[in-house]
Amino acid sequence: MTKKTTFKVIFLPQGVEINVASGHSVLDAAREAGISLSAACNGKAYCGQCRVRVQKGQTQEPGEAERNILTEEEISQGQRLACRTLIQSPMTIYLPPSHFLNEAELQYESPDFSGALEPGVTQLKVKLSPPSLDDSRADFKRLADDLPETEKGYFADSVTLNQLSRKARSSHWEFSVLLKDNEIIGVLPLGAIPVGLAVDLGTTKIAASLIDFSSGKEITRGGVVNPQIRFGEDLISRLEYAIQSRDKAEEMTRVARQGLDQLAESLILQAGLRTEQLTKILIAGNTAMTHLFCALPVAQLAVAPFVAATSDAMEIKARDVGLKAAPGAYVYFPPNIGGFIGSDHLSMVLASNIDLADDLTLGIDIGTNTEIVLSRALGQMENASCASGPAFEGYHITCGMRAFAGAISAARLTPEGFRFTTIKDAPALGICGTAIIDIVAELRRNSIINQGGRMDPTHPMVRQGRTGPELLLVDKAQSGNQRDIIITQEDINQVQLAKGAIRAGIEILLKSGNIELHQVKKVIFAGAFGSYINLSNAMAMGLIPHFPHARYFQSGNAALSGAKALLLSKSLCQRIKQITSHAHYRELSTYKEFNRLFAMGMFFLEEDLIKAHQSDFRLEDMNNFIKPNQSAYKESEERKKNENNRGEN
Amino acid sequence: MTKKTTFKVIFLPQGVEINVASGHSVLDAAREAGISLSAACNGKAYCGQCRVRVQKGQTQEPGEAERNILTEEEISQGQRLACRTLIQSPMTIYLPPSHFLNEAELQYESPDFSGALEPGVTQLKVKLSPPSLDDSRADFKRLADDLPETEKGYFADSVTLNQLSRKARSSHWEFSVLLKDNEIIGVLPLGAIPVGLAVDLGTTKIAASLIDFSSGKEITRGGVVNPQIRFGEDLISRLEYAIQSRDKAEEMTRVARQGLDQLAESLILQAGLRTEQLTKILIAGNTAMTHLFCALPVAQLAVAPFVAATSDAMEIKARDVGLKAAPGAYVYFPPNIGGFIGSDHLSMVLASNIDLADDLTLGIDIGTNTEIVLSRALGQMENASCASGPAFEGYHITCGMRAFAGAISAARLTPEGFRFTTIKDAPALGICGTAIIDIVAELRRNSIINQGGRMDPTHPMVRQGRTGPELLLVDKAQSGNQRDIIITQEDINQVQLAKGAIRAGIEILLKSGNIELHQVKKVIFAGAFGSYINLSNAMAMGLIPHFPHARYFQSGNAALSGAKALLLSKSLCQRIKQITSHAHYRELSTYKEFNRLFAMGMFFLEEDLIKAHQSDFRLEDMNNFIKPNQSAYKESEERKKNENNRGEN
Repeated sequence: MTKKTTFKVIFLPQGVEINVASGHSVLDAAREAGISLSAACNGKAYCGQCRVRVQKGQTQEPGEAERNILTEEEISQGQRLACRTLIQSPMTIYLPPSHFLNEAELQYESPDFSGALEPGVTQLKVKLSPPSLDDSRADFKRLADDLPETEKGYFADSVTLNQLSRKARSSHWEFSVLLKDNEIIGVLPLGAIPVGLAVDLGTTKIAASLIDFSSGKEITRGGVVNPQIRFGEDLISRLEYAIQSRDKAEEMTRVARQGLDQLAESLILQAGLRTEQLTKILIAGNTAMTHLFCALPVAQLAVAPFVAATSDAMEIKARDVGLKAAPGAYVYFPPNIGGFIGSDHLSMVLASNIDLADDLTLGIDIGTNTEIVLSRALGQMENASCASGPAFEGYHITCGMRAFAGAISAARLTPEGFRFTTIKDAPALGICGTAIIDIVAELRRNSIINQGGRMDPTHPMVRQGRTGPELLLVDKAQSGNQRDIIITQEDINQVQLAKGAIRAGIEILLKSGNIELHQVKKVIFAGAFGSYINLSNAMAMGLIPHFPHARYFQSGNAALSGAKALLLSKSLCQRIKQITSHAHYRELSTYKEFNRLFAMGMFFLEEDLIKAHQSDFRLEDMNNFIKPNQSAYKESEERKKNENNRGEN
Repeated sequence: MTKKTTFKVIFLPQGVEINVASGHSVLDAAREAGISLSAACNGKAYCGQCRVRVQKGQTQEPGEAERNILTEEEISQGQRLACRTLIQSPMTIYLPPSHFLNEAELQYESPDFSGALEPGVTQLKVKLSPPSLDDSRADFKRLADDLPETEKGYFADSVTLNQLSRKARSSHWEFSVLLKDNEIIGVLPLGAIPVGLAVDLGTTKIAASLIDFSSGKEITRGGVVNPQIRFGEDLISRLEYAIQSRDKAEEMTRVARQGLDQLAESLILQAGLRTEQLTKILIAGNTAMTHLFCALPVAQLAVAPFVAATSDAMEIKARDVGLKAAPGAYVYFPPNIGGFIGSDHLSMVLASNIDLADDLTLGIDIGTNTEIVLSRALGQMENASCASGPAFEGYHITCGMRAFAGAISAARLTPEGFRFTTIKDAPALGICGTAIIDIVAELRRNSIINQGGRMDPTHPMVRQGRTGPELLLVDKAQSGNQRDIIITQEDINQVQLAKGAIRAGIEILLKSGNIELHQVKKVIFAGAFGSYINLSNAMAMGLIPHFPHARYFQSGNAALSGAKALLLSKSLCQRIKQITSHAHYRELSTYKEFNRLFAMGMFFLEEDLIKAHQSDFRLEDMNNFIKPNQSAYKESEERKKNENNRGEN
């Protein structure tokens, strides 16, 4: 057989069909079909995220890698890992509901910017005399002659000139022009307003907010899963994929641009606007995401010492990054600090006013990479990024999932057993990060796990599972799921790794600045995850050290808030440059104590538990230009109440 | 037959094969096959340029349009017009030698620029310390920190950043950077020099000169036929094609860009350089050519009042107009005056120092559109463009052709009949513009045509041809050509139309400035055509009025000389802006006297003949920063000598 045979693969329930060359994996096929199948390990068969049910078609006997993840029962039901299932016949593959990322409930609430509006785009109304044989000035000159005189003169690029010549005639020479400094970036019919788009380009999700430039108010907002996710869940997997070949890097760039462009277009349609009204876009993201989006080189970013191609702010024409907008519109990418600490982190610092704090402030944004900033007075900042792993995003956790409908998002242990809250009150499908913190805290509180994180095998709730001790959370007999929702010893270990990394990062920033715990006056949890965690439980499981004199804040999607503010304020764009110049990037791996601190951080200490119980968290509203995320605040307050109630039970 | 049948068409002697849908014309097929078949009228069957010989295949009976152009004998030999020949069977088409435009001998000699070198690109050598865990500054920051401090800071676009990250590592952090103001536009290995490209983007040909930026010297030069020529020979045909659809406009843009890119690449290869060394490109051209090249809108340029989209200078990244160069390199397009008077004309004005002349100077660049400039002291200039038609480029002339090998380029009438010079001394194939002037002047001198341009049917050299009186120049019996080379009454009429338009243009500029003929002190003929014409004959046939106190100059390819100067001198780029601000565009059609002057200009007056004979042309070297075209000068001198000798016979 010299020619490669292809087979038809059907993905259900979507009904997507694709012809795939024999020998490719089902994961490859899904990616080729544009299906975002979770695969935290990017096809290395250790994350277990890509499990699918083979409904029809030949399969080989599962190998050791699959048997480590799937139970005999699951295998007998047809469950397999997509990354290990090779296509050797026509197949029908059923994707479990947890894969429907596009139906995800993504949270990106963030308050409106309330400062002075200076988006850097001006709209001017003009009425020109039409050309004639006696006055055959070029279209652009005709317009420029009519505009207020400037020293530098005006200019426009060729794409804008095309729009100008067309629209000037169709509007009978009466229209408005959009100016960015002395560049004409577009033409609008009379009555149409310019709008902008603020974007938080996350590894997992892309959130965007459409803003009216005349009022500064949000018109609408929305989000999509970052379509790059099908090439790997975390930064490093994506970078590894991108550096395999130029084609693969371009593919990564293309899908991210398409994802954002489609999101932008749908928001604009929703608002009853036209793409030509979109006159400025601001994209904040971590270094890897913005590098891939801008088609910057990433080979040097993927390996130590993790060097960015540039840490400067960039301005690129929207059309040059595949975004439909006013013909001459720009995308502004704020600066980054380096390593993986990107402009999303800086936007968070800005939105939380961490750079302006006159108290010692700790900011923390937990994710697969956790960014930590320690700000002293005078805007001097120490920044670190620690590879905390995706445990809190639901990965590498046996029944983990992201924060989508059906995810268990909060848990508390009652005498009758665990009680859960799920997102959208949907039937439980798995556990997301916030609940993992709750569960671990409760297990520790009730001595079901010890200081070292080991489950007590003699505890009545603990049973012996396939991989060791485990705890049943939701019985499949009751839920009707294909499998039990459990938490295993291995899951606890994953949480310990994440916690160890985060604590080591914090301790090193404190130590390198000779700062004692009692000196820290504010602790800010940023990001969706940080805003939805139960702080009491986070303290109880020792996610961060106990700061005796600190007040605690949860700042919501501060990255998006910051992006909105930067979109609307040129002076804040100046301020973020100041922030970068005062930021000191600390590469944790260069610190000798890192390994020791990391190991220590993995312990669940008695004192954390006690102090968390004793603390009054004084969770307070931030007196910032950006108001705090009220709903997150309320939820936290409610949780605290619940916590207290539970304490009284 | 619901599905369109296709037939194979073979073009000889190239042997190009193409499948074409039934019903398309042979001209369409040639264009689709990428064959540059001349078609001055763009398929309207009146120019007769697209004649081919059908060697095999079905044809219909020739219609009236074809019979107007082809003789019965030609038709019986299989000659047909490609634009009228529809494909209804497999065909073999033989293209006559005059179609091999790519073998053309194009003239683009122009002297080196001798002013102060300020190309606006600086090369700086750097040696950087490589990144480490202790110093993980971004690649760009590492470089920028090493460069001399500037107020504005440095920047680079994403494509340049890609090159930087790659080359910095492969060169072990020792290389040179190319700076345009504060933008880093590329990185070169040590030892490599930056070069620039000056381009004269003509309607017929694209000429380019590759320049060493360290010395300002030309490294090599070359030219190609503008590949747009297959969509029409003249501006208006091209614009008409472009405005038919967006696809067609894009096609025009694409082929011109490809043509120049291939020319640039071949010059760079020839010189043993690499494209990344090409750091600046300057393109001068008429408004239509530069608009199409930049993908600017042309619908408004194609119809009265012929409005340019922009008359300002433009700077566009080379890669955005499809040119391979240093990653961040720019193409500079000088400003234009409007109508069809483009930057090629301004470059000519600059190179000929017309703007600096303290005497009243007339500049004239003859082509399908003839540009005329009348410069008074203080740099005030009147500019006009007249649609002189392509007669002097060999079109609309029965046996006309462009100035390629085999074209009759000069003629003089001896008692034994006409004596000819052909380009490259090749066997005569047709007549090019310079010879047409000689022939008409000689016919008038010898009273073979009268003041009104009518041939004397009783003169022994005049015979009755198919379309009226004609004169045999080269007998096919002797030449072995498929047809006689003749000049017909219709050809004389075409010359009269061209001459009428040019004289009307000159007269209107003089009148609108209240200038008498004797006040004009210099007359400059620019462009290849103007540099190769026999001035005595041009005067004798009354192409321009007789200026009693003028000195005459032929300035060679002044547009390319000007482009070279602009490429190398930022101050000249400033000066050209000055020129545009002092230029006054005169739309000839708005002048009431135009029709009368046009009609009068068509006459061949006795006084022109006499004055031309009496005049001592005092053809002198121009004392300019750009030395005159020595060879053109010598040739003119020689012609004058011949003229005098003939007079003595």
